[in-house]
Amino acid sequence: MAKVKKQPRPKAVTPKGFRDYFGAEVTQRKAMLDKISEVYQLYGFEALESSAVETVEALGKFLPDVDRPNEGVFAWQEDDDADWLALRYDLTAPLARVYAQYRNDLPTPYRRYAMGPVWRNEKPGPGRFRQFYQCDADTVGASSVAADAEICAMLADTLEAVGIPRGDYIVRVNNRKVLNGVLESIGLSDDLIVNPRPMTLDEAALALYSDMVKRNIESISRLDVLRQIDKFDKVGREGVKQLLTAGRKDDSGAFIDGVGLPDEAAERVISFLTAKSSNSAETLENLKVAVGSSAIGREGVAELEMISELLAYQGYEADRIVIDPSVVRGLGYYTGPVYEAELTFEINDEKGRPRQFGSVAGGGRYDDLVKRFTGQEVPATGVSIGVDRLLAALQAKGRMTKETVGPVIVTVMDRDRMAHYQSIVGELRAAGIRAEVYLGNPKNFGNQLKYADKRNAPLAIIEGSDEAERGVVQVKDLVLGAEIAKTASLEEWKGQPAQSEVKRSELVAVIKKMLG
Amino acid sequence: MAKVKKQPRPKAVTPKGFRDYFGAEVTQRKAMLDKISEVYQLYGFEALESSAVETVEALGKFLPDVDRPNEGVFAWQEDDDADWLALRYDLTAPLARVYAQYRNDLPTPYRRYAMGPVWRNEKPGPGRFRQFYQCDADTVGASSVAADAEICAMLADTLEAVGIPRGDYIVRVNNRKVLNGVLESIGLSDDLIVNPRPMTLDEAALALYSDMVKRNIESISRLDVLRQIDKFDKVGREGVKQLLTAGRKDDSGAFIDGVGLPDEAAERVISFLTAKSSNSAETLENLKVAVGSSAIGREGVAELEMISELLAYQGYEADRIVIDPSVVRGLGYYTGPVYEAELTFEINDEKGRPRQFGSVAGGGRYDDLVKRFTGQEVPATGVSIGVDRLLAALQAKGRMTKETVGPVIVTVMDRDRMAHYQSIVGELRAAGIRAEVYLGNPKNFGNQLKYADKRNAPLAIIEGSDEAERGVVQVKDLVLGAEIAKTASLEEWKGQPAQSEVKRSELVAVIKKMLG
Repeated sequence: MAKVKKQPRPKAVTPKGFRDYFGAEVTQRKAMLDKISEVYQLYGFEALESSAVETVEALGKFLPDVDRPNEGVFAWQEDDDADWLALRYDLTAPLARVYAQYRNDLPTPYRRYAMGPVWRNEKPGPGRFRQFYQCDADTVGASSVAADAEICAMLADTLEAVGIPRGDYIVRVNNRKVLNGVLESIGLSDDLIVNPRPMTLDEAALALYSDMVKRNIESISRLDVLRQIDKFDKVGREGVKQLLTAGRKDDSGAFIDGVGLPDEAAERVISFLTAKSSNSAETLENLKVAVGSSAIGREGVAELEMISELLAYQGYEADRIVIDPSVVRGLGYYTGPVYEAELTFEINDEKGRPRQFGSVAGGGRYDDLVKRFTGQEVPATGVSIGVDRLLAALQAKGRMTKETVGPVIVTVMDRDRMAHYQSIVGELRAAGIRAEVYLGNPKNFGNQLKYADKRNAPLAIIEGSDEAERGVVQVKDLVLGAEIAKTASLEEWKGQPAQSEVKRSELVAVIKKMLG
Repeated sequence: MAKVKKQPRPKAVTPKGFRDYFGAEVTQRKAMLDKISEVYQLYGFEALESSAVETVEALGKFLPDVDRPNEGVFAWQEDDDADWLALRYDLTAPLARVYAQYRNDLPTPYRRYAMGPVWRNEKPGPGRFRQFYQCDADTVGASSVAADAEICAMLADTLEAVGIPRGDYIVRVNNRKVLNGVLESIGLSDDLIVNPRPMTLDEAALALYSDMVKRNIESISRLDVLRQIDKFDKVGREGVKQLLTAGRKDDSGAFIDGVGLPDEAAERVISFLTAKSSNSAETLENLKVAVGSSAIGREGVAELEMISELLAYQGYEADRIVIDPSVVRGLGYYTGPVYEAELTFEINDEKGRPRQFGSVAGGGRYDDLVKRFTGQEVPATGVSIGVDRLLAALQAKGRMTKETVGPVIVTVMDRDRMAHYQSIVGELRAAGIRAEVYLGNPKNFGNQLKYADKRNAPLAIIEGSDEAERGVVQVKDLVLGAEIAKTASLEEWKGQPAQSEVKRSELVAVIKKMLG
């Protein structure tokens, strides 16, 4: 026979930036997704599972004049004539494609939820993977901000459903139109909202200020202002005021040039930044002052007012959902209300320092996304929950264990009695008890118990020929056994207090009782 | 502002060979996966969700000396120095990689289940997509055929759990070693089992006879025999006998050369092909005769005997699991027992002709797959359920409807009372009733009812200012309404028998009752 050339052994590795999920990691995420989808369904949303693969064209990755598409997605081309294909990088771009494709068959408004992995071709980092789960709900075709309010309410309900108690989260709501109104009111009229062409969500994510400059926006005065606003957390009210006007010295003594706004204009920006009050009504009053006579600004405040009223009427008060002008999500993309859910409790980071957990979900109104395909504006709003972050939060709070209880293990004392051992697990399973026979090499009994330990088994069942003759089995309580092993003397331990003899005929009933 | 060049509108299409799943298509598959994983867990299997992306090297697609990897997978390379990556084409190759990678941390035996989409870069056809679901369970590290028997039993349990009653399915079991033994016993010794190098499952799938020839297997005499065996269904016992010996005339009168086996050898092959009896004990006796003195053949029969005994002891008789020599799955790949679940009922095909539904799951023992990575043989056996086919079967039998009941729709008669309508759905949701307010443009009331119809809503709630004043709402039974509309006269229909007035305070209780 002709020899086939021997291949070198392949490496057994997960590709860089990807990971595998085992046991409880899978089932706990599934349980969370189940709870989330239950709430989404209760609100009338319908499931959609779109293809994981999209054409690059539909995703909105505009190909440069080279062979490779933009960074950020995993893309390939089968042959020179074929479409470029890519893995979806979020669940919103595919929704826009699906709605445009099936709009004549879908109800309007179309409320859909979707959950599943998305892929990003980005530099991986600690806790940052190239494949991760999203869980989205969107309403397409509803222009009323009642749709936005509803999604905020649903977001609060969802967080409580997965185990974040009231007080441990806050949903913060803002409106892109308000900031635009403020900037308009101080005479900065270049337009960051209405882009020369509609952007996809991912473009928006990439649309950092520097990027905007690249896209040839002539006047950058608004951008200058935005850059200073972004420093508010760091330099505070007075610092921003100086940066917006004549400039300031930083901590190193270096002088940073100011933007050169008049004092009054700077004050207006500051009044926007500090508009947040402990109750939404006061915040809204402050925002009205901040937008002055700007029509778009007033519209934005009116929308926030309506959202606030709708939510208050249903009992969602400021302890759950609050108007907050500092929310600036996806600046380049959203066209109206934006919202974000933040967990407010502290957890310890890798170095043991307490820190706020931060954002776990966000979204907003994007009225231009379907238009890319159809030419007609289609209003849409929706939220995306970062499922993996939310799981991490629950784990950090100790509300989710990393281990699950394993099956009852029936050990093999006598290879010839395999069929009999199988019938024991058969009985246990029929009673709904997770159970299995040890299927490795049974020679070394210690290995069987090590296996049971590794599987986190609560009980092991032992039946040798002696027990079989007497119609009994030994049941070993592995949890109790492990506890006793920690404290007991050798004599106590040899007495095997964690092991008991049970009549074969009573086995299922006894085990059911032992497992509670 | 500089104009950005206008892009042509992208096409809103699912990539060729892919599809989107809506509503019930998603939730029904999820319900099925939930039921399957429940059984798998009961049997002690642990969840694994490996990365959807693998290195081409780990998947076992050996790159030719060109830029593109083998057909069959979706693969790409980020840059010239980077690894080729690919979407997984099944769940078994990733399991082998995961087990090799984590073998020191995983329990042995490692029982894992996995479910999720896989991707094949194949020519799409009717009902044949490039992305589809698999749901696998495998035991790695158990050489005993008790592991194979257990998976066959679990497969039977699983089919019953998802709604295929006993009698509507059959699990058929064979053993690769038996056929090899038969061929050995007639003096054909070239080796199709132990390949010059271990093959991946996908290679196996591709390893059709013609392909084997390409792979330079010198002697093709076994292949010749296999080709004739494959015609058994078509030409019958006598036809195969002729083809194995001196040749035969086909229906058109053309003469087909025979393989040239002596009569006795041909009879032995025939005895293998016709070994199946109505009970497994008889089948096994027949197989013993067929393999003669071949050691590998006898080993194969002994393994089947043990599987048969284990299953019989647990009550899995020939009405559920049967020894069947005609099962030849993945001929190039499996090393021992192979098994297949077939639905035995008839359904009507696209043209209304009755046909057997056929195979919905299959698997077997593959002892060489992990060895690719580690150099050490690791025994493994497992099953893969074709979830989408199984769903199609249940739908074809009318055991699964394609529609789900939609939410209760609260219509909008008065835009200013939106908060109030929202509070109605809030109450309904709090009572666990799926409900939503119509969020489209409320001007045209007919559109609201059309929407309710499209959503398959059971009830619509109507509250105008008149009703609000009187503290009542109208409840429209849309299911009853649709029935009445079919038969009633105009007068009867105008009497609105499907509509009733309900006190606002009793609304939730009444709706709960109406929905049963």
